Amino acid sequence: MKRLLITGAAGNLGAQMRTRLAHLADTVRLSDRGDMGQAGPNEETVPCDLGDRQAVEDLVKGCDGIVHFGGQANEAPWSTIRNANLDGVYNLYEACRLHGCNRVVFASSNHATGYYKQDEVIDNSVYPRPDGLYGVSKVFGEMMASLYHDKFGIETASIRIGSSFPEPRNHRMLYTWLSYDDLARLIERIFDVPKLGCPVIYGASANDQTFWDNSRIAWLGWRPQDNSAAWKEKLDAEVEKPAADAPDVVYQGGMFTADGIHQE
Amino acid sequence: MKRLLITGAAGNLGAQMRTRLAHLADTVRLSDRGDMGQAGPNEETVPCDLGDRQAVEDLVKGCDGIVHFGGQANEAPWSTIRNANLDGVYNLYEACRLHGCNRVVFASSNHATGYYKQDEVIDNSVYPRPDGLYGVSKVFGEMMASLYHDKFGIETASIRIGSSFPEPRNHRMLYTWLSYDDLARLIERIFDVPKLGCPVIYGASANDQTFWDNSRIAWLGWRPQDNSAAWKEKLDAEVEKPAADAPDVVYQGGMFTADGIHQE
Amino acid sequence: MKRLLITGAAGNLGAQMRTRLAHLADTVRLSDRGDMGQAGPNEETVPCDLGDRQAVEDLVKGCDGIVHFGGQANEAPWSTIRNANLDGVYNLYEACRLHGCNRVVFASSNHATGYYKQDEVIDNSVYPRPDGLYGVSKVFGEMMASLYHDKFGIETASIRIGSSFPEPRNHRMLYTWLSYDDLARLIERIFDVPKLGCPVIYGASANDQTFWDNSRIAWLGWRPQDNSAAWKEKLDAEVEKPAADAPDVVYQGGMFTADGIHQE
Amino acid sequence: MKRLLITGAAGNLGAQMRTRLAHLADTVRLSDRGDMGQAGPNEETVPCDLGDRQAVEDLVKGCDGIVHFGGQANEAPWSTIRNANLDGVYNLYEACRLHGCNRVVFASSNHATGYYKQDEVIDNSVYPRPDGLYGVSKVFGEMMASLYHDKFGIETASIRIGSSFPEPRNHRMLYTWLSYDDLARLIERIFDVPKLGCPVIYGASANDQTFWDNSRIAWLGWRPQDNSAAWKEKLDAEVEKPAADAPDVVYQGGMFTADGIHQE
Amino acid sequence: MKRLLITGAAGNLGAQMRTRLAHLADTVRLSDRGDMGQAGPNEETVPCDLGDRQAVEDLVKGCDGIVHFGGQANEAPWSTIRNANLDGVYNLYEACRLHGCNRVVFASSNHATGYYKQDEVIDNSVYPRPDGLYGVSKVFGEMMASLYHDKFGIETASIRIGSSFPEPRNHRMLYTWLSYDDLARLIERIFDVPKLGCPVIYGASANDQTFWDNSRIAWLGWRPQDNSAAWKEKLDAEVEKPAADAPDVVYQGGMFTADGIHQE
Amino acid sequence: MKRLLITGAAGNLGAQMRTRLAHLADTVRLSDRGDMGQAGPNEETVPCDLGDRQAVEDLVKGCDGIVHFGGQANEAPWSTIRNANLDGVYNLYEACRLHGCNRVVFASSNHATGYYKQDEVIDNSVYPRPDGLYGVSKVFGEMMASLYHDKFGIETASIRIGSSFPEPRNHRMLYTWLSYDDLARLIERIFDVPKLGCPVIYGASANDQTFWDNSRIAWLGWRPQDNSAAWKEKLDAEVEKPAADAPDVVYQGGMFTADGIHQE
Repeated sequence: MKRLLITGAAGNLGAQMRTRLAHLADTVRLSDRGDMGQAGPNEETVPCDLGDRQAVEDLVKGCDGIVHFGGQANEAPWSTIRNANLDGVYNLYEACRLHGCNRVVFASSNHATGYYKQDEVIDNSVYPRPDGLYGVSKVFGEMMASLYHDKFGIETASIRIGSSFPEPRNHRMLYTWLSYDDLARLIERIFDVPKLGCPVIYGASANDQTFWDNSRIAWLGWRPQDNSAAWKEKLDAEVEKPAADAPDVVYQGGMFTADGIHQE
Repeated sequence: MKRLLITGAAGNLGAQMRTRLAHLADTVRLSDRGDMGQAGPNEETVPCDLGDRQAVEDLVKGCDGIVHFGGQANEAPWSTIRNANLDGVYNLYEACRLHGCNRVVFASSNHATGYYKQDEVIDNSVYPRPDGLYGVSKVFGEMMASLYHDKFGIETASIRIGSSFPEPRNHRMLYTWLSYDDLARLIERIFDVPKLGCPVIYGASANDQTFWDNSRIAWLGWRPQDNSAAWKEKLDAEVEKPAADAPDVVYQGGMFTADGIHQE
Repeated sequence: MKRLLITGAAGNLGAQMRTRLAHLADTVRLSDRGDMGQAGPNEETVPCDLGDRQAVEDLVKGCDGIVHFGGQANEAPWSTIRNANLDGVYNLYEACRLHGCNRVVFASSNHATGYYKQDEVIDNSVYPRPDGLYGVSKVFGEMMASLYHDKFGIETASIRIGSSFPEPRNHRMLYTWLSYDDLARLIERIFDVPKLGCPVIYGASANDQTFWDNSRIAWLGWRPQDNSAAWKEKLDAEVEKPAADAPDVVYQGGMFTADGIHQE
Repeated sequence: MKRLLITGAAGNLGAQMRTRLAHLADTVRLSDRGDMGQAGPNEETVPCDLGDRQAVEDLVKGCDGIVHFGGQANEAPWSTIRNANLDGVYNLYEACRLHGCNRVVFASSNHATGYYKQDEVIDNSVYPRPDGLYGVSKVFGEMMASLYHDKFGIETASIRIGSSFPEPRNHRMLYTWLSYDDLARLIERIFDVPKLGCPVIYGASANDQTFWDNSRIAWLGWRPQDNSAAWKEKLDAEVEKPAADAPDVVYQGGMFTADGIHQE
Repeated sequence: MKRLLITGAAGNLGAQMRTRLAHLADTVRLSDRGDMGQAGPNEETVPCDLGDRQAVEDLVKGCDGIVHFGGQANEAPWSTIRNANLDGVYNLYEACRLHGCNRVVFASSNHATGYYKQDEVIDNSVYPRPDGLYGVSKVFGEMMASLYHDKFGIETASIRIGSSFPEPRNHRMLYTWLSYDDLARLIERIFDVPKLGCPVIYGASANDQTFWDNSRIAWLGWRPQDNSAAWKEKLDAEVEKPAADAPDVVYQGGMFTADGIHQE
Repeated sequence: MKRLLITGAAGNLGAQMRTRLAHLADTVRLSDRGDMGQAGPNEETVPCDLGDRQAVEDLVKGCDGIVHFGGQANEAPWSTIRNANLDGVYNLYEACRLHGCNRVVFASSNHATGYYKQDEVIDNSVYPRPDGLYGVSKVFGEMMASLYHDKFGIETASIRIGSSFPEPRNHRMLYTWLSYDDLARLIERIFDVPKLGCPVIYGASANDQTFWDNSRIAWLGWRPQDNSAAWKEKLDAEVEKPAADAPDVVYQGGMFTADGIHQE
C-alpha cells in the first residue's frame, strides 16, 4: 500500500499497531483527537474529529487502506456513542466511497454478541446480541460495512476484538485475550488477501479456553500463535475467581452485561 | 390492556391498524407529527416528535403496550434516518424502561435483510444484510430491542414488514405482500401470548411465493390467511414483468438495492 | 393383525383407543391392573402387573403389535416410577424379544423434553431434557426402544404425547393438545407402514400454536386434523391466563417443571 | 415464449405435457425419435436423435425454452445410457449455448438419490446417491445444468421426477406420485419466474406421505394440488403390501436398487 | 475444595484418579464396596453400597464435589444394572440435593451412543443410541444429571468415557483410548471453571483417529495431550486387525453391540 | 495386499506414488498408455487403454486394491473426457465387480466443486458445482463409486485432489497444495482401515489457508504434515499476486472457471 490510515492512533491498540503495521505501507497516516506523539520515519499525523464529515473526507483521501480503531471504545451515554460510533462510521464509509478507499479493518467488539453465554460456542453467522449501547453501535458499524460492501464493493473485515492487552487480567480474559502480535498478524492477513469480501472475525488468540469458532474464515489463513493459558497459573494466584453467577462468568460480554444505560 | 400506544398513527399502517386494533385496549393512544384526524370513541391523540426525549417519555408513560410504526419509513439522508430511527428508538426504549412499558411491536423491515437473494429462503436467525441506511436503521432498532430485552426484560416483537398495501402492486410483492388483516392478526397474537421474549418475524401473508421461513416462531400461533396469488393474474395483465437481472427480481429488498446514499 | 395388545386399557387413553383401534386386529387384548369393564365383541381382557416378568411374557405371547399405555402416567416417587416404568418396560421388551412381537407404540411423553422453552421449536433429534422422574423414565423407555431396535429389529414408535383430553383445559394445552381422533389416526399410520424403524413423534394435533416440529417424520404420512384453536375463545373466557413467568408459560413441560422430587 | 421445445414428445410425459403446456408459447416444437402423431394447431414436429450433435443444434435453434424429457428413461446398458443421456445432454447444452436458449426444464429423476432410505426426509442440498446407471446419468445431467449455469448463465430447473402416472400404482408411489397436472403447474412456474437460477426440485404431488422436502425452493411458488392419499384405500385393496425389507419399502428409489448392471 | 468424593475407588479409574486428583481437595473421600487399600495422607475411606439410600446420604454429606465412577461398569443382567446404576444414581443425586453438593463428574460411557457407526463423526448434541442395558443405564444417568441441573442447579459433567487403560489394546481403541493423564486433566478443568452447567463430553485423548467431536465444549478449555497413534505400530504387529464387518469395526460401541441381554 | 494396481502410472502422481506406496503390497502393478519406464523389484507394468473394457478386466483381475490416477487429468474436448473418464471409470468398476476388487482410491478433483467461492468453507456433504467438463466427469466418477458401494459393497475413497506438485506455484495453491508425502499418507490410511465405506476427502496439506473442511472424515485418522505457508514468502517475491476479481482469486477452481468448452 502507498498509504495506510490508522484511526484512534492515540489509543492503546492504535499505539501498539502503529509500529507493528509500519511495513504494510509506504506511509502510515495516524489520526486521533488526542496526542499521538511524534511522527516516526514513514508516519504522518493528522488530527481529526470523526464527527466532522469534511475532516474525515480529507483524512481518508489518498489512503489505500484503513484500520479503524477510532471512536468510543467503551460504554458511554447515548450522545457520545452516537457521535463517535454512528456519525463517525457513517462519515468514514462515505469518505471511502467518495475517495475510492476500498479496504477497511473495522474494530468491532465481542460486545456485539455479549449476551451469548460463556458455555455456548458461537461462530460468525449468529444473530448479534449486544450488551450495551456500545455493543449496539458496533453492530451498527458491521451493518454499515455490510451495506457498503454489497452496494459499493468496499471490503471490510470486522474484528470482534476480545480483550487486547499485554496479558490477560482476569479469568474471563482467559477466553477473550488477544495478544498484540496476533492482532497484527490478523491485520496483515486482511491486507494480504487479494479478495477480502466482508467477513466477521472473532479476535482472540489461540487460547485453550474459547467460546468463539472462526472455522468459517479458515480461508483467511490467520493462525494466532499466543495462548492465554500461559498466564493461568499467575492469574489463579493473584486474582480472585469470580462466583458462578457473576456476569463475568455467565455472559461472553462479562461485566458489560451488568451495566445500566449511561446518562449524560 | 388499559392503554395501547400506536406511533406513526398518521401513516398508512398506523391508520389501518388504528381501527383493527381498537379492541386490544380500553384506550388507544395515537401519536404522530402529522395530522391524525379526529380521535374516535376510545382513542386519544398525542402529537409528538420522536426525537424529543422528554416528549417521548410523556407519550409512553401510562401505556401498557406500544405498536411502533413511527419514524422514517423509507430511504432518506443520514441525518433524517438518524434523528427519526436512531434517536427516536433510543428515546422510545428509554421511556419504556423508565415507565415500565414492557411490550413493544417494532416495525422493522425486510430491508434489514434486503441483500439476500430472492432464490434463497431465509429464516429469522440469519445475519442481517441491510440494503440502505434505512435498512441499517432497522437493524439498529432490532438490536435495541434485543438489548432492552436481555438487560431489562422489555419484550419486543420485531416484524420485518414486507409490503403492506391493499393489494400487491408489482411482481416482487407477490413475495412480500402483507395484508392489513394479516398484520392485525399478527399484532393480536403478539399481545395475546403471556410470554413474548424478543422474536424477529417476517411480515408476509400466506403467499404462494415466499423467500421467508417463519417456522422458528411457530410457537406464536400466527396463521396468515391472505395470499398474494389472488392478484397474480391481474398483475401479469397490468404490470410489466421486470427483467431477469432487475434488482426487483434479484434481491429480496428489490429496488432499494439499486438506490445510492441519499444526500441532504 | 391377528392380535393387538393395548396395555393400560383401564386408563384414559386406553379406554379411548380401545374402540377407535378395534378395526386394526381380529382380536384386541386389553390389559391393566385396574378394572377394564366388560370385554367387547373382538376383545379379550388380561389383567396383568407390568412388574411381573412372567405375567408380561404371557401377556405378550401371541400378539402381533402392542400399544403400550401401561405404567405410571404421572410424577410419582422413585420406587413407583422404577417398578412401573423401568421394570415394566424392561419386561415388555424382553417379552417382545422372546415371543417375536415386532411392532410397539410406546407412550412416551412431552415431559421427556419438558425443560425446553416454549419459545423454542424443537424436532425429534434434540437431546432430551426431562422435567421429572416421570420424564426421565420416558427417556428410559425411548432408549430401550432404540436398543431393542438396533439389536433385535423390534420396531417402536415413541409418541411424546402432549395433552390428550376431550378438549384443551388451559392455555398451555393450546400448544400440546392431542385429540383422541388424531392419536388414533397416528397409531393407524404406525401399524400401516410396512417398515417403521424407531421414530420419535411429537403427539399434538394440528394446533395453530406449536413448539414441536414433526417434519423429520413426514414420511409417516400422519396428518392430524384437529386444532386447539377452536377452543381458544372459550378458554380465554373461562380460564385465567397464567403470568409471563409461570412454569406453564415458560417451559414446554409446564407445571411439571415446578414440581419437586416426590418422596415415598 | 415464441417457441418452446419439448423433447421426448412421443413418451408418456411428453404426450401429457404437450397439451397442458400449449399455452406457454406461440409454437410448441415437439421432438422424438418415435412417432409423435399429428401436429396440432400451434405445434410443429421435428424428429431428432439426441446423439446427433448437428441435429440437436438444428432442433434447439430458434427456441426460447426447452422441456427436456428426451433420452433413456429407465435402467439400460451402459452404451444406451451413455448415448442417450450423456452425449444427448452434452449436445443439448452445447446447442443452448450456441443458439442462446437460456431456460431448460431437465427431467432428472428420484433415482439420482434413490439409495436414501424411505424413513429419511431429504432436501435438494443432499449429496446424490444414484441407484443405477440411469440414476448416475441423471446426476450427470444435473451437473451439466450446474456447469452451463455457472459458466454461461443458462438456467435449468432439474426436476427429480417421482412417479408420474394417472394414479399411483403401488404403495411406494404413495410417496412418489406426481400428477400430470401438478407437473404442468410446476413447469408453468418455472417459465413464469423472471429469474430461475439453477434449482433442483423434487417432483411429487402434495401427498400425505413424503420423504422429500422442497422448502428450499419455496420462492418458486409451486403449490401442488393433488394427493396420492385419494388412492390409498383402492391400493390397499388391490395391491399386496410389500414386505418390510423389500427394496420398494426400504429405499426411496424402490426396485431400481434391486437391479444389477444391465449388459448389452 | 474441602472434600472431594471419589466413588468406585477400588476400580481401575478410581485407583488411577485417586492420586492424580489428590491436589484438588484438602481431603479425598474414597468409597467402594470393594477393597480400597490403605488410606493415604489426605485420604479417608468410606465403604458404601450405592443401593443403600441412607448410606449414600451419609457418604455425600460434607463433600463439595463428587467424581462418580461407582456402579456397574460393564454389561450385566437387568437387576444388577438397575440396582447399581439406576437406584445408585437416584440415591446419589438425592443426596446431592439434600446436602448441597453441587458439582458432579458422572462417568457416562461411549456405550450411551454405541450404535453410531465408526464412519460418522458425532458431537454431544446427538440423540443417544445405547448398545446394551449398560448403555441405557448411562443415558439414564445423563438424564438424571440434566434433571437435577434444570430443577435444582446441581452441575454435572457427563464424560462419555472411551477406553481408559494404560495403552490401547486393540484397533478400536485407536479411536476411543483415553489416557489416565488426559482424564485427570479433564476432571481438573471441570472443577476449575466457576460455572459448569451440565455438559456432555466425549472422553478420548488427542488421537489421530476419532469419531467424536468435542467442539461444542471448547469453552471448557480441555486440551488432551496424548495420542493413541503412538501405539499403532505395536498394535498392528501384535493384534490381528478385525474384519471389515466385525462389530469392533462397524459400530462405535464395538463388541458391546454384539452382545445379547444378560440373564440373571 | 498381494497386488495393488496403480493406473496412470506414467503421469505425475502415478510416478510419485509408485515408490511411496511400494510397501503396501507384495506386487505393485503399474498401468498406463504412456511409457512407465523400467519395472522395479516388486513392480509389474501392464500397458492398458482404459477405454478397452476387456483390457481393463484383465488389468484389474488379481488385484486387491486400486489407486486410479488414470484417465484425462485436465479440461479437454467432450469425446476425450467421455472416453477416458466416463467409459474408463465404467470399465474399471465393472472389472472390480466381476473380479472382486473391493477397495479403490479414485482421484477426483477440486474441480468437482470448483465454482464454490474461495471465501466459503465447504465440507464433503455439499452438492457439487463442477467448473468444466473435466469437473463434471469427476462427479460422474464419484457417483459411480457411490453406486458400486451401495449396490455391490465396493469401497472407494474419492480424493478431491487440490494441486499436487513439489511446491505451490501460485497464490491459489497456497490453499490447494497437496504434498506428495501427504497424499501418500492419505492413501496409506485408506488401505489401512478395515472398513472404508465410500468417503469423499479433500486432498490438501495442512495449509494455513484453506477453504476445505475434512472434519467429517476425522475417523480416517489422516493428519497431513506439510504446509504451503512455507513457500509463501518465496511466492510473494516471485509470482505476481492476481487481481481481486481474477478467477484464480474468486473461485475455488481457479482458472478452470475461466475456460470455455473445448472443441475437438
